[in-house]
Amino acid sequence: MKLKIYVTLKNGVLDPQGKAIHHALESLDFKGVQDVRAGKLIELTVDDNIADADIEAMCEKLLANTVIENYAIEKVADSAVQETA
Amino acid sequence: MKLKIYVTLKNGVLDPQGKAIHHALESLDFKGVQDVRAGKLIELTVDDNIADADIEAMCEKLLANTVIENYAIEKVADSAVQETA
Repeated sequence: MKLKIYVTLKNGVLDPQGKAIHHALESLDFKGVQDVRAGKLIELTVDDNIADADIEAMCEKLLANTVIENYAIEKVADSAVQETA
Repeated sequence: MKLKIYVTLKNGVLDPQGKAIHHALESLDFKGVQDVRAGKLIELTVDDNIADADIEAMCEKLLANTVIENYAIEKVADSAVQETA
């Protein structure tokens, strides 16, 4: 089974990487960009019988820093997105 | 309008970051993880009248290294995913 984990910064958390991308886009003369937020997309290939609790524990313990980041889990097989934290 | 740009490594390209995450998950005793691929999720807030060609040009010129990376553009407003390159 394939999982997609989307890790994004919580609102209000400063995003220097996003700012740098934004400035770079402007220096390349791209107009109309109001804001840029950079995050992570982690694609996991896991056994089909893996428990949801284990997937959440992976996110909580390693894949996301839940103090400043949100994560969302998408099971690509049946594309059921679980919004969490 | 909000855009989500998913940047992922092309198949066959070595992914040291993914390998490191995989080893870390195993050292935390998580079972059943077969493979990990790390990518980027870039969220852009742009003017509604921005041209598709400009969005693609942003990806081609800055957001993705098209030699080793694929990118996919999702317009969150009407959630139409465009798979590219």
